[in-house]
Amino acid sequence: MGRVIGLGLGPGDPDLVTVRAQRWLSRAGQVAYFRKRGQPGQARRIAQAWLAPHAQEYAMEYPVTTELPVDSPDYNGLLARFYDDWVERLEALAEHDDVVVLCEGDPFFYGSFMHLYERLRRRGRTALEVVPGMPGMVGCWWACGQPMTWGDDVLTVLMGTLPEDELVQHMQRTDALVVMKIGRHLGRVRRALQRAGLLGRAWLVQYGTMEAQRVAPLSEMGEDVTCPYFTIVLVPGQGRRPEIIP
Amino acid sequence: MGRVIGLGLGPGDPDLVTVRAQRWLSRAGQVAYFRKRGQPGQARRIAQAWLAPHAQEYAMEYPVTTELPVDSPDYNGLLARFYDDWVERLEALAEHDDVVVLCEGDPFFYGSFMHLYERLRRRGRTALEVVPGMPGMVGCWWACGQPMTWGDDVLTVLMGTLPEDELVQHMQRTDALVVMKIGRHLGRVRRALQRAGLLGRAWLVQYGTMEAQRVAPLSEMGEDVTCPYFTIVLVPGQGRRPEIIP
Ligand SMILES: C[S@@+](CC[C@H](N)C(=O)[O-])C[C@H]1O[C@@H](n2cnc3c(N)ncnc32)[C@H](O)[C@@H]1O
Ligand SMILES: C[S@@+](CC[C@H](N)C(=O)[O-])C[C@H]1O[C@@H](n2cnc3c(N)ncnc32)[C@H](O)[C@@H]1O
Repeated sequence: MGRVIGLGLGPGDPDLVTVRAQRWLSRAGQVAYFRKRGQPGQARRIAQAWLAPHAQEYAMEYPVTTELPVDSPDYNGLLARFYDDWVERLEALAEHDDVVVLCEGDPFFYGSFMHLYERLRRRGRTALEVVPGMPGMVGCWWACGQPMTWGDDVLTVLMGTLPEDELVQHMQRTDALVVMKIGRHLGRVRRALQRAGLLGRAWLVQYGTMEAQRVAPLSEMGEDVTCPYFTIVLVPGQGRRPEIIP
Repeated sequence: MGRVIGLGLGPGDPDLVTVRAQRWLSRAGQVAYFRKRGQPGQARRIAQAWLAPHAQEYAMEYPVTTELPVDSPDYNGLLARFYDDWVERLEALAEHDDVVVLCEGDPFFYGSFMHLYERLRRRGRTALEVVPGMPGMVGCWWACGQPMTWGDDVLTVLMGTLPEDELVQHMQRTDALVVMKIGRHLGRVRRALQRAGLLGRAWLVQYGTMEAQRVAPLSEMGEDVTCPYFTIVLVPGQGRRPEIIP
């Protein structure tokens, strides 16, 4: 009997996978990974450098991405069925050998794998394992070249999908800030940052630690940029620190 | 001319260092690391598995830990001088060869290394590099065996050193929660969680991913436990997710 392993692969640079993940990849007989229709899949790309050449691959293609609003019953139904189907397939695959599910970043941090994990756990037919990975945001604040949180700074992680007023309320009360899932929401996130007085300190990072990495102060970017999926906004903290003698 | 490299080593398990960190360790000629007086130093312990046997070691011993309040002028002065001194020594060491500064977790996430980094950067005499690492909290939520953040959950990271009312205010407005720097503050953190209605969902993790790892629902722990430095409190989110068919 095999297991299902959720394997965290970090922000993007293959050198930022853990030693444990590298070992799993080099020995994997079966790997599965999420991807959008017609795209290679980010987790699969990170794995490329270390993946055993003989591994059997299973692409789990999302049935929807941005065509339906995320809170519509249709979206939820489609996605729930998609996860249910793959849970059964993974259980079947795991009858013979381990199945490694490739995950960008950390599997337990806003990861799609969690939907498989909860279902598999409830059904209880397959042994489960998770290998933690470096969250994408850590590679992104590294890319900005400055410390993210100091002393007793409060750090808040928000999704760009939240309503503007909610964004503002959380932004006003934090010292350091991460906003993920920017995509089509940059305009709203930018307005919220402005209202919270944080726009001047905000960075935009696209494809952090990947070849296409791009880092810029958000205020220098155009207002109506559409961002790739791998875009994050960061505001480093400025907290308490022992006096720096200039 | 050498460089100073801030090397992130992850939560504790040596297998959770990155491939890049492992490479740096296996080739290091000079390593420096923080430690409390009389203790081995957590970063040094993580590095043990991969460190080149011939590496020259420099232990940077904190002049104070908990003897003085962190907001007193004495504490700040002592610590500032300590960092200043080591900055000069690291600059001198880097004249001949790279110096790798070992950092637990991620160097830019509440790390002592940041105080060296900012000083070295301002002085501008030495080339600097940082290798990001998995923050300790990621290994800790992995240890709880459940997903940390879902959908558009808000995640807040707090320090246990904050005043109780501030803790409560932040706790009331978040979906998922991390509280670091627990040490002598568990009583206060626990009261704040109770007031915010989160105590029933809170986990206590000590030494996450290390041999001495211990995970327990916080409500099952005694009230007056004194915790080791490597203690964290976590409240996983419960956000939106495609319906699970039981
Ligand atoms: C659904 S979340 C998945 C997070 C992943 N499990 C992790 O631990 O980072 C996807 C979001 O993470 C952010 N992200 C992750 N990696 C990134 C990278 N390398 N560069 C920029 N953004 C990234 C983006 O905001 C993206 O919309
Ligand atoms: C000064 S912060 C340093 C954080 C480090 N740079 C990181 O990225 O995790 C130290 C705090 O991190 C938390 N911590 C880090 N690693 C931990 C672990 N393995 N187990 C439990 N707590 C941990 C504890 O709350 C501790 O007080």
